[in-house]
Parts: sequence; structure tokens; C-alpha cells
Amino acid sequence: MRIDIISVVPEMLESPLGCSILKRACDKGLAELHVHNLRDYSTNKHRKVDDYPFGGEAGMIIQIEPVDRCISALKAQRDYDEVIFTAPDGEQFNQKMANSLSLLNNIIILCGHYKGIDYRIREHLITKEISVGDYVLTGGEMPAAMIADAIVRLIPGAMGDEQSALSDSFQDNLLEGPIYTRPAVYKGWEVPQILLSGHEAKIAEWKHEQSLERTRRLRPDLLQ
Amino acid sequence: MRIDIISVVPEMLESPLGCSILKRACDKGLAELHVHNLRDYSTNKHRKVDDYPFGGEAGMIIQIEPVDRCISALKAQRDYDEVIFTAPDGEQFNQKMANSLSLLNNIIILCGHYKGIDYRIREHLITKEISVGDYVLTGGEMPAAMIADAIVRLIPGAMGDEQSALSDSFQDNLLEGPIYTRPAVYKGWEVPQILLSGHEAKIAEWKHEQSLERTRRLRPDLLQ
Repeated sequence: MRIDIISVVPEMLESPLGCSILKRACDKGLAELHVHNLRDYSTNKHRKVDDYPFGGEAGMIIQIEPVDRCISALKAQRDYDEVIFTAPDGEQFNQKMANSLSLLNNIIILCGHYKGIDYRIREHLITKEISVGDYVLTGGEMPAAMIADAIVRLIPGAMGDEQSALSDSFQDNLLEGPIYTRPAVYKGWEVPQILLSGHEAKIAEWKHEQSLERTRRLRPDLLQ
Repeated sequence: MRIDIISVVPEMLESPLGCSILKRACDKGLAELHVHNLRDYSTNKHRKVDDYPFGGEAGMIIQIEPVDRCISALKAQRDYDEVIFTAPDGEQFNQKMANSLSLLNNIIILCGHYKGIDYRIREHLITKEISVGDYVLTGGEMPAAMIADAIVRLIPGAMGDEQSALSDSFQDNLLEGPIYTRPAVYKGWEVPQILLSGHEAKIAEWKHEQSLERTRRLRPDLLQ
């Protein structure tokens, strides 16, 4: 799978994409991540890619022309399954969407920045708008890095131990139950005895009950 | 405001915290961001901070001891308003929570990684669990960077133009309407005529209507 990210602050993406599972997946040839500086597609001599909004308002807006040039240059090289824009009013990103996106071949993610992007970009160039949550950020760079991370870790072979993903929260619409490691007692705080018992079937049953109980209490909407 | 982030992959946070508004807010003295390597608080000679889960399951779990040592060291130096853990089953992060958190003085954000953290950390050391959305990531580092970004940009003076935040989506429970910049026509795609009219009152009315219409269509839940 190939992911192309377009940004006006590409340096912001360096360490998130250069560490951890994303880096390992790229090193193993399971994923390709490319970051493009939108300014490279400006025709302005100062590499300007934004301008004042029509109708008067504070903030600067990313212009359609450099975005169109960048997306067209990428599309001339290969077909893309989706051209995604990260926007707080887009479709809510969730694990199900991460699963679907992880099956695609090539995607572009355009990061907004400053006050936003010219609406014509959203109407004519974008195929899917994704929101990572109901909050406003400086730009779409962190959301793009998160989407890439959530998708790439699902590609078979990306995680050291694939079993690990199967018991994650949301994969079966249940929150994960409590997990514990050594020491068995710390400052008087004990690990539940059942986990030390060695009875595999009883442990599995306890884990499932805990998972159900946590979901009922914290996120009853997931069970509907 | 001071934010201390605890992580096992602190290098992942370098570029998100070193760019854009977060960097400018720190340079202006409006915010202080500190990243702590959890491994510095390990008593293990290999700086190990994780171990296998009790009860048998795939993945590695972050141990309570180094986390307790790190949090205690920070608390010995100053009072903290919240000790936050980023978890997919925590309270949903939203703009209202960002507003409240931006009023605090000192907060700690603990990033999970690997399979998760020992549940006793959540029971005894954490005061607030926050989820940035219903999806699973490699670690809590990107969520921590996003939370820091969403909070710090609200501190007065952090943004170049404070008016810009007031019309953001969610600040008044409405999605932002469409925004446009130059050129007025691009490949035959036109900016709405009203925005070029110069009638300030009519433009304001149009924007409000667009904002309402988009919210009704895309996120009717925000109007309830």
C-alpha cells in the first residue's frame, strides 16, 4: 500500500512517520509513505500557497491551484483509490474505516492548515472527507499521521505479533478488558488472582466478562 | 501552561512539538512542553519498561514501576491539575474539553504503547482518561501531540490572529461554512457571487445560513 501525504508543513510529519510501526512497515516493504511539500507546486515566486478569504474573515486559506497541480502530478503516475481530506466536519474515522482503508492500494491524504482550504478543492478534487474527532487542530498533519498509523498497523506482517491486533478495543465492538504485568503486587496493589491461576478456560471467560462489563459501563453505544 | 508528556518513544514527538503553533507558543513563553523518556525511570539495566501479560496473551505491557517513578518525580517538583492517559476507551476528547484543559496550569500526559499499560496505573495514578476517537493506534504519542496542539492554540496569544479560532467548527456548536480564496474562477469553478458583492451584512447572513445548513445536514447531533 502507498500513502501520499500533501502538507504545507511537511517537516511536522518527519518523526511520526519515521518511528515505530510505520517505519518498520516501510522498511519491510509492506507500505510506502511519501510526504509532498505543497509549496513545491506553487507558481508564486515566494512559494506562497495561501491567500485572504473572500467575504472578509480572519485567517488564510489554502488555494486550489497548487493543490490541483500536486494531485494531478500524482495521478499522472498511478491510480488512486481515494483522495482524502482531513476535516473536522468529515465522516468520523473509526476502526471499521481503518480496516477498509487498509485494503486499498494507493491513497492521497491532503492536510489542511491555517484557516482551511478553498471549498472548491473539497467539491471537485477530494473523494473522501475524514474527521478524527470533534476538535480543532492547527492542521491536518497529526490526523494524517494517525490515519496512516491506524491503517498500516493492520497490514499483515506490520506488527511484530499479529495476535495483538485481534484483541484490541473496537475490533469486535468490545472494549478490551484490564491487562496486567509483573510485579503481581506493587505497593499493595494486586493483580486479580484469576490471572495467576493458570486455568486457561477460566481466564478466557473472566477476560470476556471484563470486556463486556467495561463496554456496558463505558460505551453502551458499541453494543447496540 | 506546562505540559509534561511521558513516552517510550519520545523521538516520535520531536517534529510535531517542534513545529507550527506549538513551537511558537513555547518561544513566546505561553506554554512549556517537556517530553520524558520512560526508560530513564527504569531500574532495569537494559532500561526495560515492559513485560509479558499475566494470564497469557500476545503483546507487551508497560509496567507500573517506571511510570510511578516518573510521575512521582514530576509531582515532587510542582502540583499537577491532571494526570492524563490516552486510551481508546477513555472519555471522548472534544472542543469543550480542549477549552477546559487550556485553563489548567500543569498537566501530565502518559502515552500508552505496545499492547497497553498495567491496569493498576489507570486505577491508581491516572486522574483522567481521554480518547481521541474510536480507533486503535500504535501508541498514545500522536493523540498526546494532538491534545497539546488543540489546547495550546486556545491560549490567548498563541495564534497569530485570535479571531481565527472564534469561527472554527465546534466553538459555537456549528460547523464552519464554506470558505474561498483567490482566484474567483478556477477551471470554470466559481466562488459564490455573494462573497464578491461587498455587502457585509448579507455576507454575514449567508455565512450563518451555510453554517446552519451544513450542520443540519452533516451533524444534526450538534444542534440537539
